[in-house]
Amino acid sequence: MCSVIQIFEFMTLLDGLTTAQTIKKRIQTEVAERVSVGKRPPHLAAVLVGDNGASQTYVTAKVKACEEVGFKSTLIQREAEITEQELLKIVHDLNENPEIDGYIVQLPLPKHINELHILLAIDPSKDVDGFHPENVGKMALNLPGFLPATPYGIITLLKEYGIETEGKHCVVLGRSSIVGLPVSILLQRNTYPGNCTVTIAHSKTKNLKSVLQSADIIIAAIGKPAFVTADMVKEGVVVVDVGITRVPDDSRKSGFRISGDVDFQGVSVKSSFITPVPGGVGPMTIASLLLNTLQAAK
Amino acid sequence: MCSVIQIFEFMTLLDGLTTAQTIKKRIQTEVAERVSVGKRPPHLAAVLVGDNGASQTYVTAKVKACEEVGFKSTLIQREAEITEQELLKIVHDLNENPEIDGYIVQLPLPKHINELHILLAIDPSKDVDGFHPENVGKMALNLPGFLPATPYGIITLLKEYGIETEGKHCVVLGRSSIVGLPVSILLQRNTYPGNCTVTIAHSKTKNLKSVLQSADIIIAAIGKPAFVTADMVKEGVVVVDVGITRVPDDSRKSGFRISGDVDFQGVSVKSSFITPVPGGVGPMTIASLLLNTLQAAK
Repeated sequence: MCSVIQIFEFMTLLDGLTTAQTIKKRIQTEVAERVSVGKRPPHLAAVLVGDNGASQTYVTAKVKACEEVGFKSTLIQREAEITEQELLKIVHDLNENPEIDGYIVQLPLPKHINELHILLAIDPSKDVDGFHPENVGKMALNLPGFLPATPYGIITLLKEYGIETEGKHCVVLGRSSIVGLPVSILLQRNTYPGNCTVTIAHSKTKNLKSVLQSADIIIAAIGKPAFVTADMVKEGVVVVDVGITRVPDDSRKSGFRISGDVDFQGVSVKSSFITPVPGGVGPMTIASLLLNTLQAAK
Repeated sequence: MCSVIQIFEFMTLLDGLTTAQTIKKRIQTEVAERVSVGKRPPHLAAVLVGDNGASQTYVTAKVKACEEVGFKSTLIQREAEITEQELLKIVHDLNENPEIDGYIVQLPLPKHINELHILLAIDPSKDVDGFHPENVGKMALNLPGFLPATPYGIITLLKEYGIETEGKHCVVLGRSSIVGLPVSILLQRNTYPGNCTVTIAHSKTKNLKSVLQSADIIIAAIGKPAFVTADMVKEGVVVVDVGITRVPDDSRKSGFRISGDVDFQGVSVKSSFITPVPGGVGPMTIASLLLNTLQAAK
């Protein structure tokens, strides 16, 4: 009981669901204004290959989010057997189609397709996932471009909650090209949110516990359920949990539950701010995709 | 006297001058082989605008290095009064010229010219400085491209001396887009040299002294002469000093001397490996530019 009381006394939930709703309302208003002056609504296309359950869930959520804010959306669904050439043809057509402002190709792709070939074929000006090297480079150089959706969602969440970042020690756990590395770049930039002293930690890091204990802000993005435990963090830490691993759970109808990288129950007691999973970074990623698509339409 | 003895007992100089010579010899051999089978030598062009003394020194050194290894080089020199349009025309011509494998536009440019416009106009496949967003993004995503010359020189120097990097805590001091940020990206990658736990520190970092004291490897790139002193580092540290600031010095004929960011006399006593300034990172930067140009020619 004591720990429950402590949670409510000291900890604020970084509520990605509500924050994403707020952002979507702003986008909705802007779209309505654009349409009222005769402009067409922004148009996002999503390419989904094969029948990966998680991918289907994500793409469905993205398409639904488009409808909520008044975007047009197009779902292009193909069997897992599609060839790389056929998929490249779809990408080229999307690049050429002036009706499409931005599009995503949902990852992972079937193994016989080289994801890099697809990524490099995407027109950077329509790359609303922000994965193309040109957009990654622009982010690193602090130039206008599309920020990768999950890191963009993370910094937006920190901003909406007014989290202090300047001079704070931020430990990013995980160095993936779509989360860990880009968020480490964003949080060291000379802006707000930013100006953190950033440490990027990973599987080869020694004394990980003491590295995490020195963190004012932790971004956990390694995909290991409940990896970060209470003994690894200091009092008052800000925790952003990017993990979304499906863990078998017989008590659920689906047979699984979603687990973050952080042991929420233990860590939340010591946190000043913490994201839940689900309902934290996930909805913010989708909101960021919409922000990028709106930017592409402009 | 004691400290001098300690230097020679414990410290190894990361001799960029000698290492760069070794690399240049390898390049020279490869160029000679290419020429012997009828291929033309790699061709680097350098664009120099105005009469900045340091820029002239750098460009002269680059052209001289080309001659040493058997490259063809072309120096395009223009008055500071050149317009942005005229400079863009030169860049476009270099992009189109099949005889030029790679080129650099020496920075800084006069204030009336937007450096970003020039940078973005450079064909990424000829951007042997590795400054274009597409090359920066490829580096971040671990894809083949041109690495920025100074960070490339730093990791090559660590490699040539067989410095252990995996699991080491590397503190990068400074977050510039041409040195600090890219070297922080390179040293966290899952490769050798790399796999460091990297902390990027800068002007907004708190407790900088204790951050530096925790470092196994320090890359100092802030442009503040002799900023890093012996009390800030731990015994056995590896130190790479990227600073090259001109400090007034009446005892020199030139009226200045070159100072690094590290107080060499004090810090070298506690170091296992340390670069001198000059003769450390500077020559390695030029060697990297040659490596990139050779790669462009292939």
